[in-house]
Amino acid sequence: MLFLVKMDVDIPAEFDAEKASQLKLVEKSRFQELQRSGKWRHIWRVVGQYANVSIFDVDSNAELHDLLVTLPLYPFMTVTVRPLCRHPSSIYEDDR
Amino acid sequence: MLFLVKMDVDIPAEFDAEKASQLKLVEKSRFQELQRSGKWRHIWRVVGQYANVSIFDVDSNAELHDLLVTLPLYPFMTVTVRPLCRHPSSIYEDDR
Amino acid sequence: MLFLVKMDVDIPAEFDAEKASQLKLVEKSRFQELQRSGKWRHIWRVVGQYANVSIFDVDSNAELHDLLVTLPLYPFMTVTVRPLCRHPSSIYEDDR
Amino acid sequence: MLFLVKMDVDIPAEFDAEKASQLKLVEKSRFQELQRSGKWRHIWRVVGQYANVSIFDVDSNAELHDLLVTLPLYPFMTVTVRPLCRHPSSIYEDDR
Amino acid sequence: MLFLVKMDVDIPAEFDAEKASQLKLVEKSRFQELQRSGKWRHIWRVVGQYANVSIFDVDSNAELHDLLVTLPLYPFMTVTVRPLCRHPSSIYEDDR
Amino acid sequence: MLFLVKMDVDIPAEFDAEKASQLKLVEKSRFQELQRSGKWRHIWRVVGQYANVSIFDVDSNAELHDLLVTLPLYPFMTVTVRPLCRHPSSIYEDDR
Amino acid sequence: MLFLVKMDVDIPAEFDAEKASQLKLVEKSRFQELQRSGKWRHIWRVVGQYANVSIFDVDSNAELHDLLVTLPLYPFMTVTVRPLCRHPSSIYEDDR
Amino acid sequence: MLFLVKMDVDIPAEFDAEKASQLKLVEKSRFQELQRSGKWRHIWRVVGQYANVSIFDVDSNAELHDLLVTLPLYPFMTVTVRPLCRHPSSIYEDDR
Amino acid sequence: MLFLVKMDVDIPAEFDAEKASQLKLVEKSRFQELQRSGKWRHIWRVVGQYANVSIFDVDSNAELHDLLVTLPLYPFMTVTVRPLCRHPSSIYEDDR
Amino acid sequence: MLFLVKMDVDIPAEFDAEKASQLKLVEKSRFQELQRSGKWRHIWRVVGQYANVSIFDVDSNAELHDLLVTLPLYPFMTVTVRPLCRHPSSIYEDDR
Repeated sequence: MLFLVKMDVDIPAEFDAEKASQLKLVEKSRFQELQRSGKWRHIWRVVGQYANVSIFDVDSNAELHDLLVTLPLYPFMTVTVRPLCRHPSSIYEDDR
Repeated sequence: MLFLVKMDVDIPAEFDAEKASQLKLVEKSRFQELQRSGKWRHIWRVVGQYANVSIFDVDSNAELHDLLVTLPLYPFMTVTVRPLCRHPSSIYEDDR
Repeated sequence: MLFLVKMDVDIPAEFDAEKASQLKLVEKSRFQELQRSGKWRHIWRVVGQYANVSIFDVDSNAELHDLLVTLPLYPFMTVTVRPLCRHPSSIYEDDR
Repeated sequence: MLFLVKMDVDIPAEFDAEKASQLKLVEKSRFQELQRSGKWRHIWRVVGQYANVSIFDVDSNAELHDLLVTLPLYPFMTVTVRPLCRHPSSIYEDDR
Repeated sequence: MLFLVKMDVDIPAEFDAEKASQLKLVEKSRFQELQRSGKWRHIWRVVGQYANVSIFDVDSNAELHDLLVTLPLYPFMTVTVRPLCRHPSSIYEDDR
Repeated sequence: MLFLVKMDVDIPAEFDAEKASQLKLVEKSRFQELQRSGKWRHIWRVVGQYANVSIFDVDSNAELHDLLVTLPLYPFMTVTVRPLCRHPSSIYEDDR
Repeated sequence: MLFLVKMDVDIPAEFDAEKASQLKLVEKSRFQELQRSGKWRHIWRVVGQYANVSIFDVDSNAELHDLLVTLPLYPFMTVTVRPLCRHPSSIYEDDR
Repeated sequence: MLFLVKMDVDIPAEFDAEKASQLKLVEKSRFQELQRSGKWRHIWRVVGQYANVSIFDVDSNAELHDLLVTLPLYPFMTVTVRPLCRHPSSIYEDDR
Repeated sequence: MLFLVKMDVDIPAEFDAEKASQLKLVEKSRFQELQRSGKWRHIWRVVGQYANVSIFDVDSNAELHDLLVTLPLYPFMTVTVRPLCRHPSSIYEDDR
Repeated sequence: MLFLVKMDVDIPAEFDAEKASQLKLVEKSRFQELQRSGKWRHIWRVVGQYANVSIFDVDSNAELHDLLVTLPLYPFMTVTVRPLCRHPSSIYEDDR
C-alpha cells in the first residue's frame, strides 16, 4: 500500500552540531535499512530545500506511523502524508 | 532529471460524455507510450480524487513542458511541478 | 484500517431537481449498505453545511478509492482523506 | 451533542523531558477517565503527526471548553473544534 | 448555547430578480420570527459586503443546523459556524 | 458604532507566572469597567481556544484603537477588527 | 473617520458591453460627486489590475456601507474594508 | 510615483525597552523629515494593530527600497509594497 | 525601473477558437514590438502552465499599467506585479 | 536550463553581527563568481524586503540544488524554485 510522504527538516541553529551530525548518520543507516526492506521505496531531494519526497510501501496506516515517528530526525520534521493507489493506466507492477 | 508532477483533472459536467471517453482513451495510450519510453517513470492515483501524482524523467524543463501541454486532457488539468534530485542516502540507481 | 474523510457536496442550482432527488436516494441506500458492512463506520453532518465527516474502515487505500469514486453523488463532491491509526491511550477496540 | 476536535501537540525541545513524560501520563489517565464516562467518545492518531482526531459527546459548548482547557497538555496544543450533528441517513444510534 | 455564525450571500446575476425579491421577503419574515423567539439573538451587516454576522442561542448543534439549512436564502449562502461559551469575566447574563 | 473584534491571546510559557496572573486581574477589571460603560458590549469565549469574540460600541475608529492597545494583555494579543452596521431586518434597537 | 477600501471589479465577459459602458459612466459621475463632497478622499489604480485602493472619510460604519452598496458597479465588486485612524507621528491635519 | 506600503512592526518582548523607545524617537523624527519632503505622503494607523498603512511618492523603485530599509525600526518590520497609479476618474492632482 | 510580472492566462473552453487564435497572433506581435523597444525585457514560460514570468523595464508605474491592460489577452489574464531594484552585488549593468 | 528562484533571507537579531558581515562578504564573492560563470544569470532586490529574485541557468536540477545549499547564507534562507522554459514568442536567444 503506497503513500506519498513529504518531510521538511528544520534543525534549529542552536542545536549542538556534533549531535546533529550523529543523528543524521543514524538516520541514513535507518533509511537504508528501510529502503532495502522495500518499505521506503523511493526518496528524492526537493531542489533548494532541506526536504525530501518519498514513496512508502507498507501494510497499514499504523505501520507507516510507526516507521515515521521512530526516525531519528522525526522531532525536527514536518511530515505530510497522502494515500496513493494504483493508477489503472500504469503498465508496471511497481506502481501498485 | 526528475520532477514530481501533480495533475488535478476537472472535466465540466456539461462536456460531451462520448468526447470525454475518447479523450481518456487517447490520454491512456499517450501515457503508456511515455511510460514505456521511460519519460513518465511513475504514476499513482490520489485516493478519493480525480488526480494523479507522477514522476517524470526528462532531459530538460522544456521537454517536460512539451510533454505536459500536449496531453489530450491538459485543457482540463491543473498542473503543479516540483523539481527533484537524487537524495545522497539512496542506495538505488533508480532514484537519480 | 481507518480514514477520516470529509465530503463537501455542491449540486449546481441548474441541475435537474428530480434527477438530484433520485441520486440522493441511491446514495442513501448505497451508504446504508456500506455502513451495515462495517466499511463506512461513522457519518456525521457538519453543522451549517451540505457536508459530512466520516470514518471508513477498509482493507487498503485502493478499496477506499473505489468506494468513494463509485458513490452516486461523487461527481458533485470535494473529498479530503486523512489516514488515521489507533491511539495508544484508547481503551476501546473500536478505535483501532 | 457531538464535536470533531483536532489537537496538534507541540512540546518544545527545550522543555524538561521528565516533566513532559509525567504530563503525558496524567494526560493519558485523564483521557481514559473521560473516555469511560462517554464524553470523549473516540480518539485516533493522525498518521505521521503528533496529533489526534477525536469525537466528543458533551451537553454544551461550555462543557467541551472546560474539558479541553483543563487537559494537562493543553498549553502545548493547537485545538480546532467543528460542531457535528446526526446524519439523516445513519442507521446507528451511536452517530447521534 | 451560543454560536457565532457568518453568512455570505451570493445570488447569481442570472437568477430571476422577482424570485430573489420574494425569497428575501420570506427570509426577513423567517428571521424576525426567529429573532422574536430568542433563537437568532443578534444580527449585523458586515460593512461593504452582502454578508451578516449573527449570534444564535440554541439547545443543540442539530437545532442550529436545522434553522440554518431551512432558511430561504440558504442555497445561496456560504456559512461558517464557531461555537462560543460564556466568558468568565462577563458581568451580563446575556453573554451566557 | 459596532465592531466585531477577535482577540487571540498567547502568553509565552517562559513568561513569569505571577506577573501573568496579575496582568489577567487588571485586564478583567479593565474589561468590566468598559463593559459597564457600554463600550465593550459583548464578550464570549471561543470554544477550545484562549481567545474571545467581542462586540465593541464606540464613537470612532480612534476610540476603538485606544481601548484595544491600552489593554494590559494587548502585547500578547493578535487582534482582528471587522466593522459592522445595523442589519435592516433586525427588530431590536440593540443591534444598531 | 478613515477607512482603507480595496475594490476588485470583475465584469463577466458575457455581460452586455454597452450596458457595462453606461454603468461605468454613472459610476464615474457618482465617484466624482463623492470625491467632491470629501467622503471618497482618495482613489488609486492598482497596477496591472482592474481594481482600486481608496480612502473614505465618513461619519460612521453605516454611512460607509451605504456608499459602497449603492455604487453602480457594486454587484461586480469584491470589497475589503480596513478601519484606520490618525497616526501619532503625522504632521498633517489631512491624515486624521 | 505612488506606492501603498503596509508595515507591521513586531518588537520582541525581550528587546531592551529603553533602546526601543530611542529607536521609536529616531523613527518618528526620520518619518517627519520624509513626510515634510513629500516622499512619505500619508500615514495611518491600522485599528487594533501595531501597523501602519502609508502612501509613498518616490522617483523610482530603488528610492523606495532605500527609504524603507534605512528606517530605524526596519529590522522589526514586515513590509508589503503595492505599486499604484493615477485613477482616470480622480479629479484631484494629488492622486497622481 | 524593473518589475517582475506573472501572467496566468485562462481562455474559457467555450470562447470562439478562431477568435482566440487571432488574439494570440496580435498578442505575439504586440509582445515582440515591446520586447524590441526594451520595455518587455524578458519573458519565460512557467513549466506545465499557460503562464509566463516576465521582466518589464518602464519609466513609471503608470506606464506599466498601460502596457499591461492594453494587451489583447489581458481580459483573460490574472496579473501579479512585484517591484524590483538593482541588487548591490550584481556585476552587470543589465540588472539595474 | 532556466529557473526562477526567490530567496528570503532572515538572519536572527541575536546572531553575531561580525560573523553575519563576514558571511555576507563571502556570499557576495561566491555570487559574483557564479554570475561571471553564467550560472546565476540575473539577480534583483525585491523592493522593501531582504530578499532577491534570481534567474539561474544550470545543466540539471542537481546542479541547481548544489549551488543553492552551498551558499554561505543558505541556512538563513527560505528558497522557492520554479522551473522555466523558453517562451515561443521571445525574439532573444538570451531567454532560452
